This record gives sequence, structure tokens and C-alpha cells, in this order.
Amino acid sequence: MSIITLLTDFGICDEYVGTMKGVILSIDPSVTIIDITHHIEPQDIVQAAYAIQSYYKYFPEGTVHVVVVDPGVGGERAILALETRRYIFLAPDNGVLSLLMDEADVKSVICVDNSTYFLKEISQTFHGRDIFSPIAAYITKGVKLQNLGSVMDQNDIKQLNVQKPYVADNGDLVGCILSIDRFGNLITDIGYNRIKRFCRLHRQKNPEVKIGSTKITGLSENYESKKAKTPLALIGSRGYLEIAVGNDSAKVYFSAKKGDPIRLIR
Amino acid sequence: MSIITLLTDFGICDEYVGTMKGVILSIDPSVTIIDITHHIEPQDIVQAAYAIQSYYKYFPEGTVHVVVVDPGVGGERAILALETRRYIFLAPDNGVLSLLMDEADVKSVICVDNSTYFLKEISQTFHGRDIFSPIAAYITKGVKLQNLGSVMDQNDIKQLNVQKPYVADNGDLVGCILSIDRFGNLITDIGYNRIKRFCRLHRQKNPEVKIGSTKITGLSENYESKKAKTPLALIGSRGYLEIAVGNDSAKVYFSAKKGDPIRLIR
Amino acid sequence: MSIITLLTDFGICDEYVGTMKGVILSIDPSVTIIDITHHIEPQDIVQAAYAIQSYYKYFPEGTVHVVVVDPGVGGERAILALETRRYIFLAPDNGVLSLLMDEADVKSVICVDNSTYFLKEISQTFHGRDIFSPIAAYITKGVKLQNLGSVMDQNDIKQLNVQKPYVADNGDLVGCILSIDRFGNLITDIGYNRIKRFCRLHRQKNPEVKIGSTKITGLSENYESKKAKTPLALIGSRGYLEIAVGNDSAKVYFSAKKGDPIRLIR
Repeated sequence: MSIITLLTDFGICDEYVGTMKGVILSIDPSVTIIDITHHIEPQDIVQAAYAIQSYYKYFPEGTVHVVVVDPGVGGERAILALETRRYIFLAPDNGVLSLLMDEADVKSVICVDNSTYFLKEISQTFHGRDIFSPIAAYITKGVKLQNLGSVMDQNDIKQLNVQKPYVADNGDLVGCILSIDRFGNLITDIGYNRIKRFCRLHRQKNPEVKIGSTKITGLSENYESKKAKTPLALIGSRGYLEIAVGNDSAKVYFSAKKGDPIRLIR
Repeated sequence: MSIITLLTDFGICDEYVGTMKGVILSIDPSVTIIDITHHIEPQDIVQAAYAIQSYYKYFPEGTVHVVVVDPGVGGERAILALETRRYIFLAPDNGVLSLLMDEADVKSVICVDNSTYFLKEISQTFHGRDIFSPIAAYITKGVKLQNLGSVMDQNDIKQLNVQKPYVADNGDLVGCILSIDRFGNLITDIGYNRIKRFCRLHRQKNPEVKIGSTKITGLSENYESKKAKTPLALIGSRGYLEIAVGNDSAKVYFSAKKGDPIRLIR
Repeated sequence: MSIITLLTDFGICDEYVGTMKGVILSIDPSVTIIDITHHIEPQDIVQAAYAIQSYYKYFPEGTVHVVVVDPGVGGERAILALETRRYIFLAPDNGVLSLLMDEADVKSVICVDNSTYFLKEISQTFHGRDIFSPIAAYITKGVKLQNLGSVMDQNDIKQLNVQKPYVADNGDLVGCILSIDRFGNLITDIGYNRIKRFCRLHRQKNPEVKIGSTKITGLSENYESKKAKTPLALIGSRGYLEIAVGNDSAKVYFSAKKGDPIRLIR
């Protein structure tokens, strides 16, 4: 039994996602389709790129992970089928897979252009239905990747144009808020390994995190670690630094928004 | 393996949809249930009727399409099981299937009233759970439609009371905005064939679309066809005229709302 | 074929729920996963407790109902596997199962603490992924409950701290609004049996319901029973008293909110 996951920015108020599933099941009726989320901010490739890192490893080997965050639909951008040791990713060539490629063991990349495996009629605005869905279903049905198009050099794949955490002139490590979850927790782009290296370098036992004018010392174990209404820093379930507030929303507490800077004080 | 699709206005904040799935799986554990959307505007039969046209064809033959947008629940309205060449539709008799009937090849219509196939206890407010779900599951399990109730004359089915695009006194073709998607694209009720006929009649090479006081000349290929922040018209993935704005929301750009008129200028 | 249902407060904008499904399918690829809702208000244990009562009975025998509304994640609270005659419930020990226990026939309760069946790495903030999902999947795969931890005395399970409907000094029965659905219907905590007993006691043929300064006499059969824009009271699909307004939103009509009192007048 095969699995296809869907990550899109289509929302769920329209029939777009349901239609994709109809196309998939028409080709491979035995596949299990799992919605990751369809609420990536419209056309926010960076948010999608980070989200992928959070879920892909938790699926069984052989899962086909489909990503349709595709501002260039109908234009010149290519469609990639990227094979790692355990998974296959299907996504537009717009950088959305580039964070994944930094950490996963990529075996091959195919530029998908064999229209034999597309729907017969291709709209210019909904390749999720007309190309991504049938291709994904043909893959789970057993069509070899090399039949879907031509091999691409990994170096030719578009890279994400994103500022990663950097060391400022005063020695602080500066990251930012990547996303804010439903509980108001602020999820940053500063990974746990990066924090450990920073502390070792500066001989700090506990990191000191700064958001706005507030300093938070040390990492908490969980959201309940401190008393209510008190800010805390912790390593979230994605392995990145998060800012939370006990029994409250850090988003509201700090009037925080996506992109705001977060510092590890030297 | 059978498929049941669900289109409702129940939203997803309550347990209504999950409960329907429990009823379905209790009767036919092998069925695959696909959510189309549960965000039809509460009781908006017209929106649902147009949505159906967009997805139903993309599902495998034999799929049972269930539609529960049902302001008359618990009242006198009948429940229809409508069979076309490839599909079965289950919906209240309130006009929601009438656009479909204009284009699909209807084989028979049954007025579903055999309570043998309902849940034992019928609430007056949630026929989605108590009638639609068990009926759908018995259909995928193999119960013949004629066992679910009595045959109806197609002419007795309720028609949707909806203004279709019309020719105004000055010769313009006047349609309206049917729905607005997550990207702010304005989806109209003017189909591509209608546009082609209009242009042929008036010997226009390219249609001229008017929204508010803005004129848009010609159809674009895709959302990226023009430069950013510029309005464009195109045929969307549903086969209908859409108004978009390059890298922006047409909804915001035009302060547009559902029902606003859209014209093809003569 | 086994079924796992998911009730959480995770929302669907993040990848949390999708990730849980990946973990489940990695352990038991044959399971069917049904979303009840992920829109329980963040950490609202009372809302979740009432919701459970509405759906659990509609699923096939053997279904594993997973509930992750878990403000104490990463802290001291236990995780329960509770077996009734027909189902297994998996939830934090925070009272969320206590309404269910009032009505269901509980066979045994296990305190889940055998980390053999957890993911290898346990985060402090996402036990939905790291503990609830793998445990649920091992249960559907056939692992016996007694292998998951030690038996608990039912009397040691946390009870929900919730005001139930009570008789006021003047003899009125006072309940409250538990939740408001998408249509603006006000769902109360006053069950139908309680209403029948109250009417019998006071020799009323029809109950008189008071919300704010409005009195509603008698129960309607359905949402269409009275003319438009008129308030009505009825027994909803959950078996509880609901306040609705014909073709309108009772929430707007009464400026109602969760927790507002509703009275049966003596």
C-alpha cells in the first residue's frame, strides 16, 4: 500500500484539493492520501520549505511527498521529481526543496516533462490537478522516475533565497520568527545544534535569548516549565528554538509577527 | 474499492463531518471517503451547484458524490439519488443538482424514502448523519438504487433559481462573480464556450472584459502573464472566466465581492 | 481493517496532524485515520469532553478514539488507555474522558508508560506525535492494553471541573451555552432527559426556555419550524437543547457567547 502526502497553499474552502484526490484515485485507487496542510500562506515558498523538514521523515519508506506551492504555475518553471534514500518528492523547481537537499541524501533528480503521464487537457492555472496528481499516482503505481522526464544535475536546481541565522557584528547570533502556530508559539529558524555550538564557543552554560527588549535565560523543558504568563524559550518538536508564554500566546504577549528577529546574546 | 465524496456546509470546527464518516464506515468499512470541501457558505445552494461541476468528473467511475447543503433539513424536501452514466449523486431536492443535470447524462432519479436504510433514530436536524451517510454506504455496498425509494420524473426535480449570464440591452454579455478563491481570484459564471460564441458573433479577436470601471483586453495564459499588480482575465481551471491580478489579490484590488457584475463588452 | 479517530486542538494550519498520521502509518499501514476535528479551542478540555460524547458511538466496534487536548504536555500528567465494551480511548489524564465515563461501560483503564511503544526520541512538547500516535497504531496492530502500562483504579482518574446544569433558588433549571456551531446555533449542556424530568416535575406540557430576556415556549421539530428571524428551541442532533433562529444566526441575534446562561423557567 502506497502513501502520497499533499502540502499546498490551496486552502480548503475551494474544491481544489478534493479534485486532486479524484485524479490520484482514478489512476491508483489503492493509494492512501494524507493532507499535511493546505494552509501554507499563498505562495510562501520559504514557509513550505521549512515545513517539509518537519514531517517528511515520519512517513514510511517509499512515501511520495507532493508539494504544490507554485507561484510560477503555467510559466517556465520546471517540475522536479527528487529521489532520496527513502522518499520521492514532487515539487516545482522554485527552491521549495532546497532546505531538504541540504540534509537529505539525494539519489537523483528528474525534470518531469513527459506529458504521457499528465492529464490529457492541461490548464495553465492548476497543475496540481493536471500534472502533479497524475504523476504522483503513476509513481505509486510503479512507473520509474526516469520515464517521467530527463535527469537533471542537482546543481541546476533553484536554491531558496532565504536569510539564514547569522552572526552580527557584536557577536550575537541573529535568527528570525519563521512561523507562529495556533497556540501563539513563535517558531524560529535557529536549530538546536546551532545553539549548542554557539554556547560552546562562548562558554555559556545556558543560552540567553532576546526578543524585543525581553531577555530569557536558559531553555525550558516544556510549555509548563515556568509559571503562567511568563515568557520561556525551548526547543520545539521540530528541533528549532521556540518562544512561548506559559498558559498564554507569545504572539499576543510580544505583538510578534513572522520575520521578527530573535537573538542569542553573546 | 469504492469512493464516497462529501460536499457540505458543515465547516470543520464541529464533529459533524467526522460523525458522518463513522456512520459510513460502520456500514461499509472498505470505502474511501474524500472531503471535497465543507466550507460552502452556510446554505448557499448556488455555490454548491457550481462547485459540483468542477470536481465530479475527475473521480473514478462508480464514485458516490454526496452533497449536504440542506437548509430544508427536517422539513418536506425530498432526498434524491441521481444516477448518471458514470456516477451516483446523493443530495437534497433543492436545486443543488440542477446545473449538473444540464450537462450530465442522467439515467434515473430515485426519491430516497426507504427508512430501512436510514439510521434507526432520525434526528430532525442532522440528516447528513442519519440519512445521507447510511444511504451512501449502502449504495457502495451494493444496494440497488431502486430499493432506496421510488422512481421520480426528472421534470419534477427542483430547479435552481439562478440568474445565468444574459445579454444586456446594449449588447454586452453580463455575468457575475460566483466565488472568490484563497488567492483572491474572482471566478465568474461566464464559461469559455460562451465567450467564444460572443466573440465570433461580434467579430472580436479578443474579448474585452469590464469589471467596475476597469477594462481588460484579451485573455492571459496564466497568472504570471502580465507584470505584477496588473489586472488580467483568463480561463480558469474550471473552464470559466476568472479575473486575477499579477502577484496580488483581485478581491482586494477591485474591492470585489460575490455577485458583482462582470461584462464582456460588445 | 482498523480505525483511529483524532480529536485535537492542533488546528490544521501547521503540519502537526499530518505528522501524527505519518507515525501511525509507519507502524500500521492498513489503518484508516479519521479526523473528527482539530479545532477544539486551544486547551479547552470541557469542549473536547462534550464533543467526544457526540461522535464516539457512531464508529464501528474496535475503533481507537485518540484525544489530544493536552495543556499539561511534557509535565506530570499521565496518559490513559481506557477500554469500554466497544471502544478504546487514548487521552491525557486531565478530565477529558470523565463525561464519557459517566455514561459508557468502562472495562479497564491503563496508565500508558511503557516507552517500548513510544517513538525513540520523545520531545517535551509534541506527545501527539511521539506517544499518542505510536501507541494508537500499536493498539490497532494488536498489542494488548496491559502491555502498554499498569492498570489504574477508575477512581483515580481526573474528573472534569465543570459546572453542570443546576436548580436555582427560584426553581429554574440553569444551564449554559457549551458551544456555537458554524450556523450560529447555540448548543447548551441541558440534555433532553433532564428537560423531560423537569417538565414532569413541574407539570409543564412544554418547557419554557429563557435566554437573556427572551422567552421561547415549546420545542420545535427542526430549524424551519417557525417563520424566519424568529428564535426557537429544539433538541439538537447531540440530544441537547439548542437555541436557533429561523434562517439566521442565533449567535448574532442574541449576541451570545460560550458560557452564557440558559434557563428552563419553572
